[in-house]
Amino acid sequence: MSFERLAERLILHVLTDRDWSRGRDMLTVARAALAGGATVIQLRDKYANTRDLVTEGLALRALTKEYGALLIVNDRIDVALAIDADGAHVGQEDMPVGSARQLLGHERILGVSVGSLDEARLAVEGGADYLGVGPIYATRAKADAGAPIGLALLRELAPLYTPPLIAIGGITAANTHEVRQAGAAGIAVITAIVNAEDITAATQDIFKQLY
Amino acid sequence: MSFERLAERLILHVLTDRDWSRGRDMLTVARAALAGGATVIQLRDKYANTRDLVTEGLALRALTKEYGALLIVNDRIDVALAIDADGAHVGQEDMPVGSARQLLGHERILGVSVGSLDEARLAVEGGADYLGVGPIYATRAKADAGAPIGLALLRELAPLYTPPLIAIGGITAANTHEVRQAGAAGIAVITAIVNAEDITAATQDIFKQLY
Ligand code: NI
Repeated sequence: MSFERLAERLILHVLTDRDWSRGRDMLTVARAALAGGATVIQLRDKYANTRDLVTEGLALRALTKEYGALLIVNDRIDVALAIDADGAHVGQEDMPVGSARQLLGHERILGVSVGSLDEARLAVEGGADYLGVGPIYATRAKADAGAPIGLALLRELAPLYTPPLIAIGGITAANTHEVRQAGAAGIAVITAIVNAEDITAATQDIFKQLY
Repeated sequence: MSFERLAERLILHVLTDRDWSRGRDMLTVARAALAGGATVIQLRDKYANTRDLVTEGLALRALTKEYGALLIVNDRIDVALAIDADGAHVGQEDMPVGSARQLLGHERILGVSVGSLDEARLAVEGGADYLGVGPIYATRAKADAGAPIGLALLRELAPLYTPPLIAIGGITAANTHEVRQAGAAGIAVITAIVNAEDITAATQDIFKQLY
């Protein structure tokens, strides 16, 4: 991986989510979040077919470049490659880490969701560039996310030699500070941003808590 | 593409389909079809997450090798690459042909579904190794397949310089002969095989009509 100051560039992920965006389209939501300080947009759309994902992804690729932000594609390595995204993010039900690393090559970022020390170890061994740690708190956005794990895993992983830790799950402006203190290099936000009436203002509120 | 005698090896595709397999698992269905003469298994599972697709795909990779058959993955180029499949098949709602060709490279087979002369032309220009032409007849298996187009497109495409034409949609032992006479190098079958009580016998019945 050749991205300069990667941890810094991973500080504020916003994940797109069609269900929680109050009917606003993905690009509108992404643009508002980027205007508020999002450093990464993760494209995540479980409803779209591959053709639509590629179309959405190409538009998002142009938009993220405009803002100097990173674009990461959830689950779909093929789409990430086709749209020249900066990377892909895989969960425990997605492509196994080793295969994902091989398909992505070493010029793109590979993020991996982990919910335990074991999963974190395997992700690091498989070549993850960052770990998505969570769900930290209860979350409305991911019905399948499992029970919240709190800050313990972050605290356990932070002193170990690992890629940047990105906290996810129920992150808001109110808990950003404690999550960072527990060892997160960055955070990933869904509803607190995409469901906000004023997405840019909500992103700015969270962004301010990061520094 | 470097497969020897490709058209011949593409003569009888069987597409997996969870909904129509009478509760039998994918590997059981595939094994029975291979025993009956299937030359290609196309892995198609719209319900599975990526992890499960990879797991299923690796098992199917071993099985198809055992029978000297080809393995093609529907839609998911990433999965095709991860399991070292022989190729991938994309429809009009999947990865655009040009991107699919680029991601797959030239050592794997790219199949493209077409339902019109224009789609066929674009598929050939994009580098398709074979064209899936259909739906020829009304089909139960693909709710989104659109209205049957009959034999006209096959007859139109056959004299043109195109990759092998594989007829799909409502193909059975009863119409295999006329489909071949209309110009199909091979056929792709779903329900007439995967929904049969005796899958091997059903495959053999169809196979016999191909020669
Ligand atoms: Ni070639």
